[in-house]
Order: sequence, then C-alpha cells, then structure tokens
Amino acid sequence: MATATRLCFSRTRVMTARIERLRAELDRLGAASFLVSDPVNILYLTGFESSNAFVLVKHKQVVLLTDGRYIEAARAVEGVEAMQLERELAAELGPRLSELADPPVAFEADVVTVATHRALAKGGVELVPATGVVKGLRAVKEEGELDAIRRSARILNETYERLAREDLAGRTESEVAWWIKQVLHEEGADDVSFDPIVGSGPNAALPHHHPGERTIERDELVIVDAGAKVDGYCSDCTRTFATGDLPDELRRAYAVCRAAQEAALAQVRAGADARGLDAIARHEIEESGVAEVLHGLGHGVGLEVHELPVLRHTADGRLEPGNVVTVEPGVYLPGAGGVRIEDLVIVHEDGAEVLTLFTKDLLTLD
Amino acid sequence: MATATRLCFSRTRVMTARIERLRAELDRLGAASFLVSDPVNILYLTGFESSNAFVLVKHKQVVLLTDGRYIEAARAVEGVEAMQLERELAAELGPRLSELADPPVAFEADVVTVATHRALAKGGVELVPATGVVKGLRAVKEEGELDAIRRSARILNETYERLAREDLAGRTESEVAWWIKQVLHEEGADDVSFDPIVGSGPNAALPHHHPGERTIERDELVIVDAGAKVDGYCSDCTRTFATGDLPDELRRAYAVCRAAQEAALAQVRAGADARGLDAIARHEIEESGVAEVLHGLGHGVGLEVHELPVLRHTADGRLEPGNVVTVEPGVYLPGAGGVRIEDLVIVHEDGAEVLTLFTKDLLTLD
Repeated sequence: MATATRLCFSRTRVMTARIERLRAELDRLGAASFLVSDPVNILYLTGFESSNAFVLVKHKQVVLLTDGRYIEAARAVEGVEAMQLERELAAELGPRLSELADPPVAFEADVVTVATHRALAKGGVELVPATGVVKGLRAVKEEGELDAIRRSARILNETYERLAREDLAGRTESEVAWWIKQVLHEEGADDVSFDPIVGSGPNAALPHHHPGERTIERDELVIVDAGAKVDGYCSDCTRTFATGDLPDELRRAYAVCRAAQEAALAQVRAGADARGLDAIARHEIEESGVAEVLHGLGHGVGLEVHELPVLRHTADGRLEPGNVVTVEPGVYLPGAGGVRIEDLVIVHEDGAEVLTLFTKDLLTLD
Repeated sequence: MATATRLCFSRTRVMTARIERLRAELDRLGAASFLVSDPVNILYLTGFESSNAFVLVKHKQVVLLTDGRYIEAARAVEGVEAMQLERELAAELGPRLSELADPPVAFEADVVTVATHRALAKGGVELVPATGVVKGLRAVKEEGELDAIRRSARILNETYERLAREDLAGRTESEVAWWIKQVLHEEGADDVSFDPIVGSGPNAALPHHHPGERTIERDELVIVDAGAKVDGYCSDCTRTFATGDLPDELRRAYAVCRAAQEAALAQVRAGADARGLDAIARHEIEESGVAEVLHGLGHGVGLEVHELPVLRHTADGRLEPGNVVTVEPGVYLPGAGGVRIEDLVIVHEDGAEVLTLFTKDLLTLD
C-alpha cells in the first residue's frame, strides 16, 4: 500500500478540494466542525493511512490526531496540523475537544461506538450525529479515482482470462483462491480488494462462502468472486463456471441469473432509482420460480469494496454520474448449487460503462 | 478460512462451554440477555463467520440473527436458533427486541455504533452497556487454541528461517512483503494474520510502515513484522535485519532494543502487572537516551492479531495463565532507521513459553 504515501505528497490539491466539499456540509448539519473517525474517510480526505486517528475539520484548520506509531507519518501530511495523543485517542481528546474544536461538532454516528461517544462527550461539547456524509462525498468519483478503478478492473479482467485457460475440477477451492491471488499480483495488483470467493457445488449456494478444502468436482457450478486493489482503489467481478455437464435446474438458474443481470444493467444510468434497479432483477428471478432472492443487486466500489450507493430493495435515492457500482444478482439453489454474475460499472448520464469485460457466456472449465 | 465451518461442526462442546462462561457474566452486568455484535466474538462463541450478524445469548436459548447471504450457513450451526433479517439488522431487530430478548439486554458498547444503538433502542428495551466481556473471555486461551497458535508460530518461524537465507538489499519492500506472503502460504498458513510490514532505512523509523516501492539499500536496518493464520488463529513476530555495516547509532539502537525486550520478557508470568512489564522496557529505552518510546510493549493475540490483554503504560490488570501476548519494544530514530524485536509467548504460572524461536542476534542479509 504505497498509495497512501503517494497520495499525500502529490495530491494535496485534490485533498484540499475534498476538505472544502466537507466544509460545505457543515451548515446543513448545524455544526462548526466535523470530527472524522472512519480510517478510510480519513485516507480519502488527507491521504493519511492508519488504524487509529481522528481528523478534525474546522472552517480554518484541519487537525490530524493520532498515536506515536503513526505520528511521523502524520507530520508529513501537507495542509494539516498533526497532534500526538495516547493510544486511547478519545479518552484524551474528549476533555480537550472544547479547546480544540469549534462547537457544535458533527461526528460519524455510523462509525463512532457508544463507548467512544461517551469519552468524546466528557468535555461537554455539543456533539451532532451525522451519518454517511464523507461516504456520500466518496460515492461520486473524480476522474483520477475512475482511472484507478479502470486499471484495477483491467488487471481483474486479465486474471479471469487466465483463469478461463485453467481446469477447475480436481483442485480445492482454496487452491483456486490462492491461484487467483497470485495471478492478481503478477498482473500488477497492489493487493486483493477482498479474499477471493470460490464456491463449488453445494457451496455455490452460499453467497459469501469462504473457500475451503472441498475438491471441485466435475459437472457442477463454481462461483468465482474476486477483486484487485490498485493505487488504493478496488475492483470487483463475479463469474460462474461449469465443470462439465449440468443438470437442467442449474442450466436454467444460469440463464435466469444472466437475464436478470442484463435487464438491470440495461437500466443503469444517472437518475435511475436504486430500489427500482434492484426490483428489475428481483422480479426476473422471482417470476422464474427457480429460487428466493437472498441479497440485493449491488453496491458502490471505491477505496472500499463495499461503499455507497447501495442497490437494494430497502435503498433510497438515485444514481449520479461518477458513481461506480456492481450489478450482481444471484440465484441460489440450497444443496445443489448457485450462480452469481457481477459486473462493475461506471454510471454516466446516458448509461453504464462496463469495466468487467470478461465474457458472461457459461464457460466449461473441466 | 475453512476454519469457521470446521469449528462449527466439530467443536460444539467447546462453543457450549464458552456460551456458559458468557451466561455466568449476566448477573454481574445486571442483564438477562447479552447481544453480541462483534463478528470475531460471534465466531468465538458459535463458530459462525460473517460480516453481518447478531447473537442473542439468553439463559435458555441462543439466537443467531443474520441476513440472506449467510442464512444457509447460520442454519448449519448447532445449538442456536437461526433467524433471517433484512440487511440492516438493527433497524429490524430494535422494534422486535422486547419480544426476542429477556430484558435488560447487555450490548457491546465498544463495538456498537451510536446509530446502531439508536436503532436497537427503538423498541424501548433497557440496554446495558458492557465493554470487553467476550474479549475478556477470549484473552484466556483453551488448550485447543494454544495448539493452533503454536502451529501458526511454527510456520512463521520457518518463514523467518527461509528469509534469513535471502538477500534483502536491491529488492523493494513490497517485493519482500509479497515473498513473505508466498512462503507463509507454502509453509501451510491458511492466510496472513496481517499484511507483512517491511520497513527499510528511514522507513524503519515508522512503526507501522506499509511496504512500498523503496528499494532496500546496503548498510541499513530493515524491520520485518509478519504473522500467519492457522485454523483461525494468528501468530506475530518481528525481527530487524542489517544489510551491511551499520553506523554506531543503529548498532546501539539494536542493542538497546534487545536488552529492553529481554528484560521485559524475563518478567512475563502469571500475576505480572501489565503496566509494570511495559515500564521495564520503557525504562531501558529512556535511560539509554537513544530514542523516545512510541508505542506500548505488546498485546494479546488469538483469533485477532490485536486483542486483550494489552501491555501498555495505560493498561490495568495482571497476566493470567493462558494469555498469549507479544513482547515488542521498538527503538525509532527519525530519518535514520529503527529496530523492533517481537516475541509471541504463552503466559504460564512460572514464566513465558516463547513461540517465536528465530534468533534475536542481529543478522546481516545483504
């Protein structure tokens, strides 16, 4: 993860603009400062990466608070004032918050724990709960971010192309998962965006199966869900392969899943309703009668592999240009197998730019 | 991560005993149920692994609540009642908590966010904040856990032995980090317990440096901090290597760090004061005058690479038999280099069982 360091030295202007966009939210929140605590939000706003920090954004100043393990790196971040605290940051920050922050202070209510909130409240400063504010900013990507995601997806595409020249039957799920990690590295990924999911036979009916010691057999389905990380940005793609002749119910599951995926994908564009997109795929699967729907259609992808916006039957809102989302319905037959087909796309005014170009035809890798 | 599945089918008795130990805490907490939300605590208590679940432990019943992605796996867990909720678990659980739980309900205040707490409180059930309860149980390892940690450490030792036969100068930090990941896999690790830290030259002065594109040079120090994961359990070890002749200040930093590490390690046993152990190493380093102390002495290791107990100058409590902790002072010279030497040990009545047997002599890998 050389990314963080690279970001903080060469991209100060981008960071400054992001901080300004956050400041523009303060009035709406009824706050004069914003206390950022999510490590990825902190990376996004400052380029600083750690497991233990707060960033206090005021109208005239940005303060980065961290412990001794990270303080040298914090001092190298341009445009912020670095301050060293004890490891239990909130215990020390709480009593000093009235002196350091301009109240009221907005805080990330979907990140800060009840115990941390209690520590922060110790000094008597008015704390305003805010949810999804920085994550909301992150949902609309800048050009530089889109470029990184495109590069991440190209590495992932090349990995699937190489996988398509392999045999799957006879190898264990975890062997295939490790093979994918190695190829992603060889193709230039800095890291995986998550540990690859390889679910074979009955395990393919479990949407988030962790690959295990099961040996992949002939004549079954194998779900492969993987992602690369490049310059901090994730990609995410799922394909489902056959390992020989399939029973009719699994062939039909594949056809239903693909039709649902393509129907929803065709409607992705700026202004599309997040819940409505989910409903398109959901309707296709439910109407077919092959399976229950176990999860939503998709999610945003960026610095994290799951971020805003969500495409789900409980979601609100509409897609915006610059959103990057997955479109990934699944059809799961308990005990028998499952299918998931997932594309990663950039949302434009007039439609979706599909980044995961590997074929969606059912390939047999036996 | 085949672990989860293996745990949940073959270790029901162990899980039942853990649940009983949690139930035994309820009276002290003034609660009749305990709502567990930390995913690792849930894994520990039930063997079930997911990114989105609650476990409700009542005196007579255990309920596992999760979303559709994990429900099939949840139904396979013995001794619990699985219940499917929408993805936003707390929003649906809150209004139903009075019907599902016996009040008052203890919750994990150091895990549950302010927003989730608000959702859980919607049904009007009395919620009792509790911190570190399941983590406290996890701090004392059972024999089966100690065996897994010993195996994890053996793989790590073998990886350091192989590293000691390599040259470091001329390779980038990230190349060395990837090499370590591959060797850990070859030696039988299921995964890394964290991405290896490789900090060379001035980067060795940053305790939590992420390996980057810097090429390791001759005549400097390289900190290598790595860990394996085996059957769900972590190991953790740091050694610092030279790549040639060192200036006197770095040789002295190494000697000071080693003396501090060995002085603290010699006092590790059941009953030792966590803060006092930190003070031993801290005193050695501060007295030497070579550097400020940037972090605490160590931390517990188990299902997570950072868990209880902590050995730090702000820590409370004493070590217990069955604790597994790191002993890892660091000496950091900003701009010049750094040293960290870390052992992983099991705490016994009469002393420490050191699991990381790779030499602490200063080796030169040029």
